[in-house]
Amino acid sequence: MTILDGKKISNDIKDEIALDVQRMKERGERVPHLAAILVGDDGASLTYVGSKVRACERVGFESTLVKLPDTTTEEELLQKIKELNESEHIDGFIVQLPLPKQINEEKVLNAVDPSKDVDGFHPENFGRMALEMESFIPATPFGILQLLERHQVETKGKHTVVIGRSHIVGRPMSILMSQKGKAGNSTVTLTHSHTKDLSEFTKKADIIIVALGVPEFLTEDMVKEGVVIIDVGISRVPDETKPRGYAIKGDVHFDRVSKKASYITPVPGGVGPMTIAMLLKNTLIARERQLK
Amino acid sequence: MTILDGKKISNDIKDEIALDVQRMKERGERVPHLAAILVGDDGASLTYVGSKVRACERVGFESTLVKLPDTTTEEELLQKIKELNESEHIDGFIVQLPLPKQINEEKVLNAVDPSKDVDGFHPENFGRMALEMESFIPATPFGILQLLERHQVETKGKHTVVIGRSHIVGRPMSILMSQKGKAGNSTVTLTHSHTKDLSEFTKKADIIIVALGVPEFLTEDMVKEGVVIIDVGISRVPDETKPRGYAIKGDVHFDRVSKKASYITPVPGGVGPMTIAMLLKNTLIARERQLK
Repeated sequence: MTILDGKKISNDIKDEIALDVQRMKERGERVPHLAAILVGDDGASLTYVGSKVRACERVGFESTLVKLPDTTTEEELLQKIKELNESEHIDGFIVQLPLPKQINEEKVLNAVDPSKDVDGFHPENFGRMALEMESFIPATPFGILQLLERHQVETKGKHTVVIGRSHIVGRPMSILMSQKGKAGNSTVTLTHSHTKDLSEFTKKADIIIVALGVPEFLTEDMVKEGVVIIDVGISRVPDETKPRGYAIKGDVHFDRVSKKASYITPVPGGVGPMTIAMLLKNTLIARERQLK
Repeated sequence: MTILDGKKISNDIKDEIALDVQRMKERGERVPHLAAILVGDDGASLTYVGSKVRACERVGFESTLVKLPDTTTEEELLQKIKELNESEHIDGFIVQLPLPKQINEEKVLNAVDPSKDVDGFHPENFGRMALEMESFIPATPFGILQLLERHQVETKGKHTVVIGRSHIVGRPMSILMSQKGKAGNSTVTLTHSHTKDLSEFTKKADIIIVALGVPEFLTEDMVKEGVVIIDVGISRVPDETKPRGYAIKGDVHFDRVSKKASYITPVPGGVGPMTIAMLLKNTLIARERQLK
């Protein structure tokens, strides 16, 4: 059994990006610049945006944090997005979600210039991805592909079962894994809340990608020997033996399923750390496309 | 066994559209107006565009055929598209494919204003469809959904196997059938040229959608009793007993598979006739969105 080590791989990717940035500097080029818009003071959002800014520093990117008050109107936010769209100094930017309730999320995400949409949330990018055109792949799916590719996990001709049809993980993964491409050419079944006899599908799967948000949902009786497991779930489960009073659990019962798996992502330390690395990678790609 | 009769259902849909147009006229509103751009003199393209224009007349739409010579440059075509994008009298338009080789097809399709892209080929529309936002569903997938819906074929919780991952049929069908919605909530497996043991999947399928282009590919030993069959294939097979010297065949061996099927589309007269009806429907939708 091999652990798909997201911590290590995400660090490798960041090192590679840092080297690219170093070379840009040596060539006298402007380095990539990522901006993040944060509306309000949500604690978790502050933490996420903070990590993204620190990650930029780590690889040598410039970064800008645009902090707007909780009372920001939709119009004000759209105006700020327009500024970033037009700025020659910003290569890519993200709008940290969730947004205050007076603001329409869909409208905001659709206002981001697709060529700067490094989160890959704009429908045009989603469509371009699905139609195999140049696009930005959303960070979590992009990270999963990297985990598979860099461990040379064979996907061609394998049966992949995706559990969960979210727009952010399940849907894009089901598309990407069945496309032509490195971690692709897989026969993909997308399962969800209306699937009958889920075990019938998972038991035959060569690769299982779970993105459900139900702690320890996938158990050893649901999988076959040698399966590859990608666990996207991350939940806090009350646990008095832990200093913080909770444990972090994935959607997979790791202890039991790992005994049958050939490859498996741990939680934490699997898919999670890949996300920020791939956001940086998308920003680097945005910069390189501009330079062309 | 019930035939999913595309000829009848497409006529029903055209009658409904004609009634809507009649009501628009009675309210003093301008009727929907579809334009088609045809570049060159390809015989098949001329026939297709001709049928689209006649279908417009049948339901009371206005239509415009823009015929450009074979020697049209990409720039000239993009200029014409810009005119149609800006025209207040055109609700939707299509660019008939294929295009002469001096013209980049992707560039041309991306130039169509997504709000007038009644073929649903623009990546923004594809992304909006995949993300369950307001969009235009491409005509063939839209037609298949209608065939299923109007025969009240249950799709929720059923296992659908799609054969073929084309951007025009297989990929969008695999997405639509697994979404929330009327002919949706199905567990979908997308199979393709790299799928091993295709029969293992098709034998368990409740619904099979074949879009492969290989005449009589799907045979009775590959399906289970009671299966629902949607045949998107349409090929000419040499046949000296026919007046034209060929027979029209689908991807399904109709005579044999129909004995086991609960519902099946014939070829011709199944999916084919639905396509133009759904193009008209999309044009009507475009007009109605403008009126809002």
